[in-house]
Formats: sequence, C-alpha cells, structure tokens
Amino acid sequence: MDIHPVARFHSPFLSKFGIPKQSGLVEELEGTVVFEPRYRNADALRGIEAFDYLWLIWEFSANPHGATSPVVRPPVLGGNVRMGVFATRSPFRPNALGLSSVRLSHVEWATARGPVIHVLGADLMDGTPIYDIKPYVAYADCHAGARSGFADTTLVRRLQVEIPPAVAASFSARQLAALRKTLELDPRPHYQQSPTRVYGMPFEGRDIHFRVSADGLLTVLE
Amino acid sequence: MDIHPVARFHSPFLSKFGIPKQSGLVEELEGTVVFEPRYRNADALRGIEAFDYLWLIWEFSANPHGATSPVVRPPVLGGNVRMGVFATRSPFRPNALGLSSVRLSHVEWATARGPVIHVLGADLMDGTPIYDIKPYVAYADCHAGARSGFADTTLVRRLQVEIPPAVAASFSARQLAALRKTLELDPRPHYQQSPTRVYGMPFEGRDIHFRVSADGLLTVLE
Repeated sequence: MDIHPVARFHSPFLSKFGIPKQSGLVEELEGTVVFEPRYRNADALRGIEAFDYLWLIWEFSANPHGATSPVVRPPVLGGNVRMGVFATRSPFRPNALGLSSVRLSHVEWATARGPVIHVLGADLMDGTPIYDIKPYVAYADCHAGARSGFADTTLVRRLQVEIPPAVAASFSARQLAALRKTLELDPRPHYQQSPTRVYGMPFEGRDIHFRVSADGLLTVLE
Repeated sequence: MDIHPVARFHSPFLSKFGIPKQSGLVEELEGTVVFEPRYRNADALRGIEAFDYLWLIWEFSANPHGATSPVVRPPVLGGNVRMGVFATRSPFRPNALGLSSVRLSHVEWATARGPVIHVLGADLMDGTPIYDIKPYVAYADCHAGARSGFADTTLVRRLQVEIPPAVAASFSARQLAALRKTLELDPRPHYQQSPTRVYGMPFEGRDIHFRVSADGLLTVLE
C-alpha cells in the first residue's frame, strides 16, 4: 500500500540524538503538527479539542529502509540482549511505522500554514512525516496495569543534570524543563560510556554540549 | 512510502457487517495473526509473551481508497453529525490505516504457517492486512481518565439479544458469548431501523439472520 504524509512534525530535536525513547517521558517537550497543503482544512479537525490525547502514526524517516533483522537490541536492556522486532518499539522495522500518543495542548486554527496542532510529550524528530492522526479513546486504548514486558518505566535510569546559569538563561522555563528532563534520560548511545567524551546534541536550534561522569552526573558545558 | 503486509488477520467476521466499532468491546472475539511467508520466524516474536496487549497497525482493506472528505459522520452520534476525520477513528481516511489494541492470548510457536498469535477483542475483518505489530507499553500508552470527546463508552447503546437454543447449540461457549456481545452492540447500519427487515451477518462461517424490534430487542432467527 502506498501511503502519503498528511502532515509534518516540528520538534526541538533536529536529529535523532537525544529524542526520548517513548512518548510522554518528557511532558514539557512542545511540538507542532503542520499539515501538508492539501490537508490545511479546519473541517478535518472538527471536534478534536474534546480529546486530551492523540495518536500519531508516523515514519522513522531517519532510519535506513530495506534490510531488517527479526531481532533488535533494546537500549533499555543495555544493548546486548536480542528481542523480537514485534516485541519492541525499535525503529528498525519491516515497515518504518512509528506510533506515539501525544498530549493535545491546543489548536491554532488560522495560521499561514492552516490549522496547527500543538502537542506535548512527543518523541518525534523535526520534519517527521505523519500519515495519520486519530483521537485517543480511553475506553479502548487504556489498559491500566497491562504487563509491559521489559519496557517497564522502572527500567528508565535517570541521570543527575547540571546546567550552567548562562546556558539556562537562554531558554524559556518550559524549554529548560524539557531540556533538563531529556538529558536526565541519558541521550548517549548505549555503547558509549566514556566520562571524558564531549557529546553534542542539537536542541531548539542550539548545540548543547555535555559530559557524563562515571557515577552518572551529566554536566552541560558553557 | 510503500508499506507491505507482514501478516494477515483471521477473524470470525468475513465481512464488515457486525464488526465492533472499537477493539476491546467484545473481549471473547478470538482472532489470529498469521504471518506472511517471509516473516514466519519465531525470532521476530522473542519476548512478546511478556506483554498483555499488542498494537496492530492495519489496513481498512474493505473501504474504497482514494477520494475522501475532511468530515465523517460517526455512527455513535446517530449518523447525522459531521466530525473532522482526524477527530474520529472512521475508516474513511486520507491513508487507510487502522489502529487497534488487542489482548494477547497466546502464541502457537510451531504451526505449518509459522508462529501464530492468538488475540482477543479485535475489531478486524477476516483477511485484513497487518503492517506492524508493536507491544503495548502501559507507561507510555495508557492515559487513564483522558477526555475522549464524543467517543465515550456510555454512548454505546446495547440491545437485548435472544438466540434460539438450536442456534446457540451450534457454537462453542466462547463463540456464543462473542456472537451475543457483538449483536448487543447493534450491527445494523445506523440509517436502517426497520423492525420488519431481516438482517444477515456472516459469523464463524455461518449466516446469522436477525430482526430488531422498535424497542430494541434483537431476535436471532432459526
């Protein structure tokens, strides 16, 4: 089946580096859904503000398509354990489809680019093509207490984060909170753990540089 | 983006008629996910049994593709109110992508068709192409108490259902419960409410015929 983007996502993340591994982990992350010209029609969103959450079906557009393996190595398991691709949310899939529930913040109904949806907590890179938007229906979609295998929130280790005042002052309060919580999730590739290495992460059009000590203190550099 | 089926769904429903309007409404409905030959590999499912629910991303394959409207008329609103397509789960979408959470019952690991996943509560027609399977991760996917607009469970009206013993005896207990709950959801098209009309619904390879009285009693005919 040939599918075509109905919208594109706009995000503080200009590269894959640093993007939280699931939606909702960093609620302060604000992003926007900007429709493609042929879908810039307020009618298509009529009634959407009565929902708290939306599903986005999108494309892992920064991953190479084509050859895939039946197994992947989830970072949350340390990168050495192989799990089946259909038992994970790994980006390396037979079809490069991503799925995220995001919080609907508000809709800007009349912009030069048509109606724009503002959402919170997205784990999408800037420019990601979106193929469908569906409302989150709690009675069908919410399974409280569902066993979630290895993907348990208690397995998300958080770092301590220090941001120098001069860097902090250049962001709004929400941007700063989003940056801090993103860094707490440890954006380093799981196979790189050198305490002397300086990492760079594009965020909100800026380059953030940081180091992580052996005991888990992440320090943003001036 | 060109996507290709990784599996097909097998369901008691051989046509669209009667299929519940969301996943999970009829928990007794059993269906199976049968992989396409190139994905018949137990490795691709390694670890999946540690999850209670799965997401299926699938195709509304029984709907005409192509021309769509920005608005649709949800049956739950009586069929006369127009809502934006992105504010509904309507099958008439810019891309014919469906999304359902289903309960994972068990995996048959070694069959002539490779590993087969047995699931409960699916709202998929027999033969539906499946493009991706992802585990349900409660901490990211479950938003208890999320406002769900018009799609509230209290809006699902249920009928009273009478099934004659001779018909009931030809089904297993689970099949009978699935049939009863499916009929309670009122499978009639919303624009047809004639109490004299006899409706036919294929289910588990049988043809079920029924009438619905003006006061909401559905009677299955012998």
